[in-house]
Order: sequence, then structure tokens, then C-alpha cells
Amino acid sequence: MPEFCARGASNSQWQGLQVSKADRAARLNQTPRCIWLTGLSGSGKTTLANLLEERLFVEGRHTYMLDGDNVRHGLNSDLGFSEADRVENIRRVAETAKLMTDAGLIVLVSLISPFAAQRKRKPSSGPQINEGDRSNGLTIGLSSLQ
Amino acid sequence: MPEFCARGASNSQWQGLQVSKADRAARLNQTPRCIWLTGLSGSGKTTLANLLEERLFVEGRHTYMLDGDNVRHGLNSDLGFSEADRVENIRRVAETAKLMTDAGLIVLVSLISPFAAQRKRKPSSGPQINEGDRSNGLTIGLSSLQ
Repeated sequence: MPEFCARGASNSQWQGLQVSKADRAARLNQTPRCIWLTGLSGSGKTTLANLLEERLFVEGRHTYMLDGDNVRHGLNSDLGFSEADRVENIRRVAETAKLMTDAGLIVLVSLISPFAAQRKRKPSSGPQINEGDRSNGLTIGLSSLQ
Repeated sequence: MPEFCARGASNSQWQGLQVSKADRAARLNQTPRCIWLTGLSGSGKTTLANLLEERLFVEGRHTYMLDGDNVRHGLNSDLGFSEADRVENIRRVAETAKLMTDAGLIVLVSLISPFAAQRKRKPSSGPQINEGDRSNGLTIGLSSLQ
């Protein structure tokens, strides 16, 4: 399983920002979360995520959906389907979800995540994504990216 | 200058999502934008972006700041400082800003962008970032990622 090295970080100084995650979450009146749906192709990830997002939106939550297929048309358009590229695909989605929860959003991720090690991998900082129950090839996890 | 190919997109079908960018922007009562600050190290990009974000927040806007140094600790932690890696660093930040404007946010980007071709490059779809005036090594551009 490919591993990553933080080549850039050692030359970059962390910049303190004025408006905090807590400020943004308070403004949106919600607790930022990442809800991670993974499963086989056709198992219903995106359908379920769409229904969930619609419901949350109606309830006044501010959400965003990171769909694995759609992200491959933009941020991850340079990646193919080799094992290394699939791992990198998931890593970038997890890091983007982390930025979006930092922005105060409730993020729904709909993504095939074939490798158990990657499903359990931490983003650059913060707790790992905890897997929920598995049924019908679909797994739903509520991350503690909050 | 390295170029990118969309290796993954041809095997991924675009997934239609229920809650639209317009829905999210209307909920936040704002027009999503990306304000891109680029310039030399120490030219004041992050200081200015922080002041601007604070002002926007006080005015009731929902913002997020993508700081180049901070992104190198997470999403772009696998990138170094070669020309190819600097180009990829900027490409990923632009694509992430695009996702965040899609989420309805006003995104402030503070990033050294050394290559003119990259400053003018389009994200995967949508208009390019237009450069504003240059002074004191600092350039501010208001993108049409809206």
C-alpha cells in the first residue's frame, strides 16, 4: 500500500487565521460533520447521499456532497485507477472533506473505498473516519472530522 | 510547463446532485466568489486575506480561506517545490476553491503563484481567474468562479 510523505510541509510555516472553525460553525448554527458512504458500484451510495442531503437541507443544514465520480472530473482528474491512484483519490477527498468541515459544512462523501487500510486512514490531522454497519455492499461511516 | 490529462474522468459518469449550487448560495444569501491573492513571500497576502475575511465575516458573509502554506500540511502534503509540484499545488487549490464556491462560500486564496500560465489557467470547467492590479509584489484577482 503506497504511503505518503509530507514533502512540502517542512518548508511551509502554518499561518494563523483570524476567523475560526468555531466562528463559521456558529454562524451556520450547526456542528460540522463528515458522513462517509462507501460501497460497491451501484450499491446506492449517491442515491442515499442525495436523499440525505435533501433532507438535511430542508431541515436548514448547510451541506456539500463530494461525489467520487464528480471529483474525478476536477480535483482528481489527473488520477487513474491503479492501486496508488485509488489510494491518492481517497486521500485527497478525505483532505478536502476536512477543509470543508473546517469551513463549517456538513459534508457527505460518496466514494468507492476498496482498501480497508485507506478507509481507516486519518486525514493529515484529526480523528479517523469510523466505519458503521455494512449491508448490501454499502457502508456508512460518521467521521469525527468535527 | 507540465500539462494535465483527465485520466480518471473517462471512466466516471457525472452524478447529478439534488441540492444545487444556487440552493446553497440562496441559503447563505450571498454570491459565491473566489478572491485570489498572489504575490511574493512576505508581500502581505495572508495578512490582507485575514483582514478581508474578518471584514466579510462581520458583514454576515460565509467565507473560507485557503492558505497555500496550510494546504501543504494536508491536501498537498505529498508535493514538493519542483516546477511540476508547484503547478500541481496551484491546480489543486484552484479545484478546491471551485468546489467551495459550488458549496456557496466566498473563498479567499492566499498563494504564491509563480507561473503566469498557471495564474491564467482555467479550473476543470468554468472561467479563468482574472488578475487584478499588481503592486508591491502582490496581485489580487477576483475569479469568476461564481
